[in-house]
Amino acid sequence: MGTSSNFDTGGKNILDLVKKNHHIKSLIVTAPNKSKTQYEIQPPALDYLENPNRIIADNYYLMNIDMVLKILRSGAKPERHELVAEVHFPPVIFPSKEQMNKFIVLEKVNDPHDLGMLTRSTKALGWNGIYLTNKSGDVYNSFAQIVSKSQSLTWPYIYGSSEELRKFLCDNELKLLIAEPPKQDLQAISQVFCKSDNRIFTRTEELEQHDDIIKTPLIFWNGNKSDSSELKLLSRIALLLSRELKSGKRNNEASISTENEMRVGINAPFIDVPSAGSIIMWELNRITASSKNV
Amino acid sequence: MGTSSNFDTGGKNILDLVKKNHHIKSLIVTAPNKSKTQYEIQPPALDYLENPNRIIADNYYLMNIDMVLKILRSGAKPERHELVAEVHFPPVIFPSKEQMNKFIVLEKVNDPHDLGMLTRSTKALGWNGIYLTNKSGDVYNSFAQIVSKSQSLTWPYIYGSSEELRKFLCDNELKLLIAEPPKQDLQAISQVFCKSDNRIFTRTEELEQHDDIIKTPLIFWNGNKSDSSELKLLSRIALLLSRELKSGKRNNEASISTENEMRVGINAPFIDVPSAGSIIMWELNRITASSKNV
Repeated sequence: MGTSSNFDTGGKNILDLVKKNHHIKSLIVTAPNKSKTQYEIQPPALDYLENPNRIIADNYYLMNIDMVLKILRSGAKPERHELVAEVHFPPVIFPSKEQMNKFIVLEKVNDPHDLGMLTRSTKALGWNGIYLTNKSGDVYNSFAQIVSKSQSLTWPYIYGSSEELRKFLCDNELKLLIAEPPKQDLQAISQVFCKSDNRIFTRTEELEQHDDIIKTPLIFWNGNKSDSSELKLLSRIALLLSRELKSGKRNNEASISTENEMRVGINAPFIDVPSAGSIIMWELNRITASSKNV
Repeated sequence: MGTSSNFDTGGKNILDLVKKNHHIKSLIVTAPNKSKTQYEIQPPALDYLENPNRIIADNYYLMNIDMVLKILRSGAKPERHELVAEVHFPPVIFPSKEQMNKFIVLEKVNDPHDLGMLTRSTKALGWNGIYLTNKSGDVYNSFAQIVSKSQSLTWPYIYGSSEELRKFLCDNELKLLIAEPPKQDLQAISQVFCKSDNRIFTRTEELEQHDDIIKTPLIFWNGNKSDSSELKLLSRIALLLSRELKSGKRNNEASISTENEMRVGINAPFIDVPSAGSIIMWELNRITASSKNV
């Protein structure tokens, strides 16, 4: 069982993979060593044995829990009556530069639930993929996989350092936009996005005249206080989400240096990262939608 | 330790309660029965013992894990070196009918992570509280509490049956709006909300004339196919979120009968419940904001 495989446990999880046409290489049913009656085998192992046609695999194995633990080794915690499937890592189709204009960058997002949810909503909202910096978690974690409804297995993602991220952004002409909680004095400002030239204004009355502006409750500001240049939202965005969306300095070794990048925030104090991420992706989709009629 | 108490485990969780000024009634440190050296006591118990002034309680107890398990009984799973705090259930201030115009109703949302996130984003986005129907989970679950950053302890919520929900909605003049995935044929329709009379239109050119309309990617439709009356968003909304946002019939015993209620959906297939809930709350906030200038 080579390195190009991934192990999944639990009947529901495996059935979800079957439904999504993943090829099951091996299926392992966990059962006591010499079970005398079928009552010693319990679900989900029993569910499968009663209805074996639901999961078709290249190879089938029946073994006890100690053997399964030896094979899995890792953080997986199979039960005594478990179903374990070995699947090929599915081929992930990475978008080309032309197909890529809305990317997510995660920094220190290591809760598997948060990762799974962000994978799911990134896909649901039509963003192109996820860049995970060093300190972000494992998308192949079984919990991330369950929460993402197995989307994490096929969703385009990259792991890399802060330096590699710079190169990736540069190569793909993506511009960082940092999600942060807005400072108090910024919360009262409501903003408008001008579609013809991507400029963002603080709302003033004369803007009513324009017919290509869109009001938004998103708050944009310059990361660098001394930079008073006008705000302009580039059409190719890499939205950076950090665990807990902390504001302030992030110039320690592991962090991405982002002092001069533009910031975006929502006026929803203490919201969690996946919800904030979903809202910001949704609202950026809305204001940058190509056709004014949509 | 009466019924008006709640037990919390884990150093970080308890420190969060202290920070939020919750009164700690009892603090229990779990340690081996006759520990010979301090090395037998480990974090988070050790963290506390090394810095006891961080948590001030009325009473302090040192006991072994077996005793702690007897006291906690429930689903809590304390470790051998645990910190357990007993806190009063804080007084929850329930909004009056006048203060209540945006409420969340949860149906069969029993994952503690989903519950915790929804509690947090409901508060962050300024909605007024949560109604949990029979089959929804426990907001006092320790995991829901951690995910919600202890917001679940003080956030207004009600548990009730479907019948009691009807009465609650009636008494508070709230109107159900059901979140569901939009059907295929609805996804192409983009809609506009008319602020002066709360009407929702499918977009047509002549609407451009009006100056009190707001375009939205939210999709609204009538639950009852035979009902072709025009859509009107009431100003007092009870947004119903179900686990997995399933569409279709829900007329089994435990479900809320909602055939004739208005539906709302977003074009983001397979998004999870907390993210969809946050996006819909955000977008309803935006389109119904009282001042056009905000």
